[in-house]
Amino acid sequence: MHFNDSPIGIFDSGLGGLTVYREIRKLLPFEDLIYYGDTARVPYGNKSKETIIRYSTEILRFLALKKVKIAIVACNTSSSLALESLRSDIDIPVFGVIEPGARKALISSQNGPVAVIGTSATIKSMAYSNAIRKAAAGIINGSEDNYNTGNNNNISHIRVIERACPLFVPLVEEGLSDEKIILGIIKYYLEPVLAENPSCLVLGCTHYPILENFISMVAGKNIKIIDSGVETAGAVREYLEASRMLKQGDKSGTDSFYVSDDMEKFKELGRKFLGRPLENVSLSVLG
Amino acid sequence: MHFNDSPIGIFDSGLGGLTVYREIRKLLPFEDLIYYGDTARVPYGNKSKETIIRYSTEILRFLALKKVKIAIVACNTSSSLALESLRSDIDIPVFGVIEPGARKALISSQNGPVAVIGTSATIKSMAYSNAIRKAAAGIINGSEDNYNTGNNNNISHIRVIERACPLFVPLVEEGLSDEKIILGIIKYYLEPVLAENPSCLVLGCTHYPILENFISMVAGKNIKIIDSGVETAGAVREYLEASRMLKQGDKSGTDSFYVSDDMEKFKELGRKFLGRPLENVSLSVLG
Repeated sequence: MHFNDSPIGIFDSGLGGLTVYREIRKLLPFEDLIYYGDTARVPYGNKSKETIIRYSTEILRFLALKKVKIAIVACNTSSSLALESLRSDIDIPVFGVIEPGARKALISSQNGPVAVIGTSATIKSMAYSNAIRKAAAGIINGSEDNYNTGNNNNISHIRVIERACPLFVPLVEEGLSDEKIILGIIKYYLEPVLAENPSCLVLGCTHYPILENFISMVAGKNIKIIDSGVETAGAVREYLEASRMLKQGDKSGTDSFYVSDDMEKFKELGRKFLGRPLENVSLSVLG
Repeated sequence: MHFNDSPIGIFDSGLGGLTVYREIRKLLPFEDLIYYGDTARVPYGNKSKETIIRYSTEILRFLALKKVKIAIVACNTSSSLALESLRSDIDIPVFGVIEPGARKALISSQNGPVAVIGTSATIKSMAYSNAIRKAAAGIINGSEDNYNTGNNNNISHIRVIERACPLFVPLVEEGLSDEKIILGIIKYYLEPVLAENPSCLVLGCTHYPILENFISMVAGKNIKIIDSGVETAGAVREYLEASRMLKQGDKSGTDSFYVSDDMEKFKELGRKFLGRPLENVSLSVLG
């Protein structure tokens, strides 16, 4: 059993997951939060499924030792490739960022195509396409069963356009400041996607909300931008409420951050992600 | 004792070191070569010194088990930060890529400033500045001793301009094909360097030779471009000749490649680095 006052665990390959952390902190101000960023082995987006599962499992076990009541995989790549394995490895509810983002995309699609951008590994996994189609099958038919029966006329109109944008993460991490180059790189990746007139665009990587203003400039105001981190925070609050696992009382929650390398860089860049300075950062090497 | 017919070990954080491998193969066609690319933990350029030493030591021990007669750190970041530690860890001659590049830069400087570009970790370490100044002290005074005496009028004219270009590695690894964006990113990093009128430019990262044509276009033909990999291959051949460690006979040397993740991506991208298909690639996870 997990007690109500146990902390919530959140992890990512690096510091991108802090954009999810920020949203969870907003919605759940009284919860104690523990974050793990695997900065020694970042990025995951260009690694194999086996390696991503191995690294993610090590982190989940670390969080389990910290007695978290729920774990959030605040990394799209790991959510795409490791979630199932993580759920079978350990007896703690594990949330990913894909399903909440996919559900919101479906609601926002208005019969137009849904565009998804992410790392190479996330896009290659087709996790968003699959999650959106499953959600569509569930909503339209009341069950997922019809999805594989061939009787999918009702859902075949949900077209999903996926595109990997592998330079976006280094662009954010290196803090390149030349607006012309940033917009040039965003246009390079988005133009073929925008040519298909999507109704919404899912930011399928936790780094991308940092570029959201630039992405909006390129996408134009008619395309709704969906931040999977925002949707995940909402889903987690709902779950904790429904299962009566919210922490009691009105004392502000504590923040703890663990990284596997370079605390100083994490603090410096993390400030940009979290929108405030990071206190209570420790080093903890896994593997 | 290492026998003449033992292999040469070469390693890098990923596949960048294949540009060094290529030069060594050119100069030493009869030697057996073993390459290790740490593709599960790539890149090193944004990691701390402690982590880079730990990863590099694991790889060097792996190569030692393969009975290499000499090891080449074909990674500027690891050469900058881990070389001393590696040399004290194991009883095999260990070569880095910094000193050979630094010596060539000194010879090419013609009293003008030397420019060096590399990853954040390499540049932050100032390894090239230090190596160039040490080489200058050695050449001008016949010994390095004067370097720290304050009597450095003779060498104070060797000005070294260093600049980190952190987007170059992802640019190469992701194979982005838009020439305008590639040139835009190169200009963004090089323009402040070129404004100082350097006489030569050291490519202080093994990925950068892949961008050499574009870098030349931006730098112009008056700036000599120095590839540390080419210089290192020359230094290694000299060493093996002088110490009578060259392999005997005229049978073509064998090639073996080990990676810690994703053999397929390594083979695919490696072809671009090596200029020919890669055979004999195996997976070997360390750590």
